[in-house]
Amino acid sequence: MDRSQLDGRTGEPRGLGRSAGTPADQTTVRRSNLSLVLRHVSERGQCSRSAVATETGLNKTTITSLVGELQARGLLKEVGPQHAGSVGRPSLALALDGSRIGALGLEVNVDYIAAFATDLAGRVLIDRRIGFDAMRSEPGRSLDKLVQMIGRTIADLDALGVTLAGITVAVPGLIDTSSGTVVVAPNLGWQGVSVADALLSAGIPADVPITIDNDANLAALAEYTSGVALGTPDLIYLTGEVGVGCGIISGGRLLNGADGFAGELGHVVVDPSGEPCGCGRAGCWETKVGLAALVRMATPDHAYGTHHQAMRDPEERLAEIEQRRAEGDLRVGAAVTEVGRWLGRGAALLVNLFNPRVIVLGGYFARLADQIIPVAQAELDRLGMTSAAERCGFAASTLGFGAAARGAVNVVIERVLSDPTTIAFRPS
Amino acid sequence: MDRSQLDGRTGEPRGLGRSAGTPADQTTVRRSNLSLVLRHVSERGQCSRSAVATETGLNKTTITSLVGELQARGLLKEVGPQHAGSVGRPSLALALDGSRIGALGLEVNVDYIAAFATDLAGRVLIDRRIGFDAMRSEPGRSLDKLVQMIGRTIADLDALGVTLAGITVAVPGLIDTSSGTVVVAPNLGWQGVSVADALLSAGIPADVPITIDNDANLAALAEYTSGVALGTPDLIYLTGEVGVGCGIISGGRLLNGADGFAGELGHVVVDPSGEPCGCGRAGCWETKVGLAALVRMATPDHAYGTHHQAMRDPEERLAEIEQRRAEGDLRVGAAVTEVGRWLGRGAALLVNLFNPRVIVLGGYFARLADQIIPVAQAELDRLGMTSAAERCGFAASTLGFGAAARGAVNVVIERVLSDPTTIAFRPS
Repeated sequence: MDRSQLDGRTGEPRGLGRSAGTPADQTTVRRSNLSLVLRHVSERGQCSRSAVATETGLNKTTITSLVGELQARGLLKEVGPQHAGSVGRPSLALALDGSRIGALGLEVNVDYIAAFATDLAGRVLIDRRIGFDAMRSEPGRSLDKLVQMIGRTIADLDALGVTLAGITVAVPGLIDTSSGTVVVAPNLGWQGVSVADALLSAGIPADVPITIDNDANLAALAEYTSGVALGTPDLIYLTGEVGVGCGIISGGRLLNGADGFAGELGHVVVDPSGEPCGCGRAGCWETKVGLAALVRMATPDHAYGTHHQAMRDPEERLAEIEQRRAEGDLRVGAAVTEVGRWLGRGAALLVNLFNPRVIVLGGYFARLADQIIPVAQAELDRLGMTSAAERCGFAASTLGFGAAARGAVNVVIERVLSDPTTIAFRPS
Repeated sequence: MDRSQLDGRTGEPRGLGRSAGTPADQTTVRRSNLSLVLRHVSERGQCSRSAVATETGLNKTTITSLVGELQARGLLKEVGPQHAGSVGRPSLALALDGSRIGALGLEVNVDYIAAFATDLAGRVLIDRRIGFDAMRSEPGRSLDKLVQMIGRTIADLDALGVTLAGITVAVPGLIDTSSGTVVVAPNLGWQGVSVADALLSAGIPADVPITIDNDANLAALAEYTSGVALGTPDLIYLTGEVGVGCGIISGGRLLNGADGFAGELGHVVVDPSGEPCGCGRAGCWETKVGLAALVRMATPDHAYGTHHQAMRDPEERLAEIEQRRAEGDLRVGAAVTEVGRWLGRGAALLVNLFNPRVIVLGGYFARLADQIIPVAQAELDRLGMTSAAERCGFAASTLGFGAAARGAVNVVIERVLSDPTTIAFRPS
């Protein structure tokens, strides 16, 4: 069915062709046109004013005024000169500026906090990660660490002459995005933690917009905008860590569900007689493919019982598993194959329900992809609906553990592109 | 995450505020404004020209011209007179017309073909259903029956002075919507059947747009636009028939997936050691909750082996089960409870992955809803992620077996509202 069929239900008037001269709409029209021009130059790259006019359908007088405002806000700049053919005076081309405007993405995970910052054009300014045992710390202490990380990063951005346009924080859990609250993050031991409020009361400037979102959702976005599945409108991101995460992009949109809780594959019960899970149920998919399950199967000498919360130093455990696998340890090989099998079973379920074109593997899945993918693909082909399964493949993420923080940066940049008036005029 | 974050990826310029006077865009702008005005009157009901002007932001001169064209196409009419307060001359209000424009939806299912036709304002013109054993007929014969049904319906609409704006056909299977081809419909025994081509070569007028879609997708749409879940942007429709169907609306949009194959819950393997399924696998969800499973458990004297394709006269079987249940047959009661349990397990999976607000039950699920829903809800609460499960409820469809055909009509109407220029000018 054509996707446009339901568009009318949103109740948003399309607005196309609204007459100029309707006073109530002037501000909205202006903001939308600023966004149109900025996004156009951002996606197309360096181009002339007249190309922007032709390609957006806006007239040249309007373009001149819009470009002037975008320059004053530090979002566009002139480069050149370019010669417009052999006749006429040389004209300057437009290019995305935003070199003084920063976007900050962060991720709090079980054993690290990561910060990633770029300018508006995507140039990387800061990329840092500190080890931190969030799993066995009180939420308050983890938030303190997060605030320290943000404070240090803002200071570094200040030193670079960059003003922050926004902060997005990725957390592995169920997030109420409207209030910036973590409803529950089982592997962090968080419940009802208002991250947005905590950052504000810790002195993060109130004029910097803060959003909180699920880590796998943000990583899916990163894969879509800059990863191995760049531009693939139907993709699913699966990440294996102490917990497992799932982010779904369907028809070019992140799937949220009614409360922002969509994509909780980790706690789908796949084996009712299976191991107990941290969520209180038994046989959840996470108990089959989470890092704790792999450690338990591969290196039972390091497993601290069945409950993943008891697992220490996940990064070290993973390094050891990789080492033993390289040495040809049969038990490790069998364990990785078993994970691949359950990964394929989960994938079959996703393929039947979402009909994606690609499933991107992140976290530890990516590090063992050479062995995991063939097993998972065979299981997908066996269990998934043929028509959908044969058109879907696996790909290992190349973004590493930085995917969620990178997706978080994208959220900030996208907000600026959608409404350039959120960026202040710069003193000239 | 805010749903608008990805909008820019579609590459469609927003268009808001495009300057009038850009010649290349005049046709697009006109079409979009015709749609804006028609949709506004359609959703708001009878209103004055000046109300339309105020509420759409279009100026009055433009409104006059647009309304004139919509009247000439038979889409709007004047009613009244209304007095605009105590001063000024009486003015005529606008109302949706479309009384001469028909939308036709059809459904081919295992044991019936249904036709449902309304005018553009949703007034029911034709609602008919014929019993037909599509399951044991060659596809060619089923298509002949469909063509006969369409021919008869078009003749009846002609007699009413109604011109057909489009036809949409619902089929229980995987549909390639772009070519109007049924890739596979296991319970009809169809594979690679081009319904659109068949209708054209059978003489259905070539100027009537034809679309084919999955029955559960169309039923989900009907529930969203006119059923028990009216206006609920995150809903899932599950229908129990010989096969089971699943249609998903997420964020107000029908979820299609990359090829239109999304929502195939029926063939998710939920019990690897379970009964063989018509699809060639074993233990698919359909083998637990399809009508054949219920018949097998409730009235083993009527079950023809495990394969649902062997089941005869499903409607009679269902009537018998209802009868025996009313008489207090314990075996029937236990069978319905078992179906409810598996329905709840399927629902838990859907709730974790899609976070819907409501799951609408259609087909035979609706007819046994009083017993099925409490059992399914308990199983959902036990197995689903708490935060999402506690915000999701079940509801029995009130649209009956007509849901898919009704959704098919909505598709045709929506297309006219999106582009009123597809309707010809009427001779005055």
